[in-house]
Amino acid sequence: MEQHKEHKLKELKFSSSRIEALTDGIFAFAMTLLVINLNDPQLRGLVTNQELITNLVKMLPRFYMFLLSFALLASAWGVHHRQFSYIKGSDNMLMWINMLRLLFVVIVPFSTVLVGEYGNLPAAAFFFCFNMFGLSVVSYYELEYAVKKGFTEGLPDEHKKASRLKGAYPVIVSSIACLVALIKPELSYWLFALIPLGILFMKKLGKVV
Amino acid sequence: MEQHKEHKLKELKFSSSRIEALTDGIFAFAMTLLVINLNDPQLRGLVTNQELITNLVKMLPRFYMFLLSFALLASAWGVHHRQFSYIKGSDNMLMWINMLRLLFVVIVPFSTVLVGEYGNLPAAAFFFCFNMFGLSVVSYYELEYAVKKGFTEGLPDEHKKASRLKGAYPVIVSSIACLVALIKPELSYWLFALIPLGILFMKKLGKVV
Amino acid sequence: MEQHKEHKLKELKFSSSRIEALTDGIFAFAMTLLVINLNDPQLRGLVTNQELITNLVKMLPRFYMFLLSFALLASAWGVHHRQFSYIKGSDNMLMWINMLRLLFVVIVPFSTVLVGEYGNLPAAAFFFCFNMFGLSVVSYYELEYAVKKGFTEGLPDEHKKASRLKGAYPVIVSSIACLVALIKPELSYWLFALIPLGILFMKKLGKVV
Amino acid sequence: MEQHKEHKLKELKFSSSRIEALTDGIFAFAMTLLVINLNDPQLRGLVTNQELITNLVKMLPRFYMFLLSFALLASAWGVHHRQFSYIKGSDNMLMWINMLRLLFVVIVPFSTVLVGEYGNLPAAAFFFCFNMFGLSVVSYYELEYAVKKGFTEGLPDEHKKASRLKGAYPVIVSSIACLVALIKPELSYWLFALIPLGILFMKKLGKVV
Repeated sequence: MEQHKEHKLKELKFSSSRIEALTDGIFAFAMTLLVINLNDPQLRGLVTNQELITNLVKMLPRFYMFLLSFALLASAWGVHHRQFSYIKGSDNMLMWINMLRLLFVVIVPFSTVLVGEYGNLPAAAFFFCFNMFGLSVVSYYELEYAVKKGFTEGLPDEHKKASRLKGAYPVIVSSIACLVALIKPELSYWLFALIPLGILFMKKLGKVV
Repeated sequence: MEQHKEHKLKELKFSSSRIEALTDGIFAFAMTLLVINLNDPQLRGLVTNQELITNLVKMLPRFYMFLLSFALLASAWGVHHRQFSYIKGSDNMLMWINMLRLLFVVIVPFSTVLVGEYGNLPAAAFFFCFNMFGLSVVSYYELEYAVKKGFTEGLPDEHKKASRLKGAYPVIVSSIACLVALIKPELSYWLFALIPLGILFMKKLGKVV
Repeated sequence: MEQHKEHKLKELKFSSSRIEALTDGIFAFAMTLLVINLNDPQLRGLVTNQELITNLVKMLPRFYMFLLSFALLASAWGVHHRQFSYIKGSDNMLMWINMLRLLFVVIVPFSTVLVGEYGNLPAAAFFFCFNMFGLSVVSYYELEYAVKKGFTEGLPDEHKKASRLKGAYPVIVSSIACLVALIKPELSYWLFALIPLGILFMKKLGKVV
Repeated sequence: MEQHKEHKLKELKFSSSRIEALTDGIFAFAMTLLVINLNDPQLRGLVTNQELITNLVKMLPRFYMFLLSFALLASAWGVHHRQFSYIKGSDNMLMWINMLRLLFVVIVPFSTVLVGEYGNLPAAAFFFCFNMFGLSVVSYYELEYAVKKGFTEGLPDEHKKASRLKGAYPVIVSSIACLVALIKPELSYWLFALIPLGILFMKKLGKVV
């Protein structure tokens, strides 16, 4: 009994399966929530088919943003999915890093509303791009932490290197997008297209999988 | 080390369990979200029982659309459920095909609002029918892709044929509904009843299970 | 090849795990969605603490309905949980019965809004009670179907009997509530308290577990 | 047959996996739902970048509350996660204790709206703090119950003691916050920062893990 007070309790290691379950739930919800923003007051009280078409066309910028956010969240989920196919365990710190990551995920529907309405204003564009920057930084760091703590045992070194490269690339693209947002907001969103293009290119070179 | 740069990294194969988890989450959310549209301003500030009944009756078309969308999403989930009882693995491409499928799922609550309010306008009916067309095309293609890549090993040929038939049929029905939507919007929704009827008929013939 | 056309394909049996996953997702969402109705316009633009308290107190009936619906959904989930601890497999029909059950689940947040605003009107009370009646009927029937189809192999007869009794009881209570709703709406909600009381009594008698 | 009527049916024990699934779903939704409150009417109809920045800055208190609630829910999920890594089984009572816990979880988005708008009013602050108090009390009690019923077999005594300490601490902090809320609402929210600080300190002492 005396002894217990003297030695420190050993930190418990958890399986990562419930972290994955919570993450899947939050991604599922955030991705579906995006559609709520499409349900707009400007679609109420219309009478003719022409009016409806006109108003749907007016909503196109909002629709593009919906598609962009959906694709970015899908891609971020894919990264999580891939990382956690290596990460076998977790500790308290990893859970909190993952929570920070999920925080950036739940903010996406709000960022998307902002740029859907104010896509031409620097403040909105910066908010959106910074959201994606935060998400990609934490995503990158979570794998680093898991590797350091030995939660990815059995992952070959070349795959670690490839995962690191693939994780660092969106950090760079989104940090550039943050800068561009302040100067030329309308352009910043298009930069995210560099993420899939760059990864396809790296795949071609055989650097990533 | 030199060598790593020369040979390409081998594409990793994943288990499909988290794709199923995300899919279940998004379906669950989209199906529940449908009910939000029922919560209408026209139900506010009423006083008498008669007023409430009158306004609930006025909402009947919206209620039909809710039921139709719920049934179509339930059916689409059933197709996914059945397909992934065969599909044992996944790769990056399969994940993205599945994401495209989920995109059509999350749009359903929006389409349902549109036809709930403008069910008699061709633009709304076409939007709804095209949504269902997209969903059924991608559903069909996802199984084709999985078969081609060998993720469905052990599935007997006759079941492949039956699944293909069962998947192709909604594509045909919804593409006809798209055409009808442009000419006679009110009729287009009823065509979806052909999906369960046709499948029951094919079951009777023993072509599908 | 010829032969395939003559013999019918054998119906596939599925594991019930994804039906459980979808069900958990829909229950989770419907239960959380209930809270959205508490977020009321009458809580906007207040200035003093007294005003806030007054308005919160005015919301009490809505809060009771929130608690009632939460408890009924929790209880309905418990029934599903218990049933599917016996039900090991599923077929197409069982999936559709479960979907009908989920339909009644997703309608609950809407019914709750109705009775939160119009709890004293027979139309609203009946809508709510009928929703619960539908949910309990389908819940009862789903187990019957699973037993009939042999999906509950290994379940002792006495447990089947107990489950049937426990499932039939809410059907009776909610059908009485439907009648009372038409005559004395304010009373009908209290009848649902008979469900836990009755089950505790049956437990005391050792008839159910 | 006669005999069955005389002896009581044995209470069934369930695996806890579906309770975890429902819990993960409800936490995921509640955490994502928090962001809906950020989507404010005061962000509509703006024209210049300066207006947007001004209105975003005005929303800072609401943003703090969003972050606080997200962190508290994340922490509450972490506690559940840790507890259920010990709790191997469940019975009916444990399910209902968990449901009460989930009730306090789904109320959080509503409490957060209240303090986002009326953070300086005692009634709002008390509502929020009491919500967190209820959540921590039930969280504490659920483990006690599971230990008493033998669902945590194999958990070493020192870990039980540590878990109890770690669970009791937020109960104390949030009960103090309830009192402070009535006197100095603006201060009460900051008290929750004592939870992570205290736990880090106890970790340093080796009392908890």
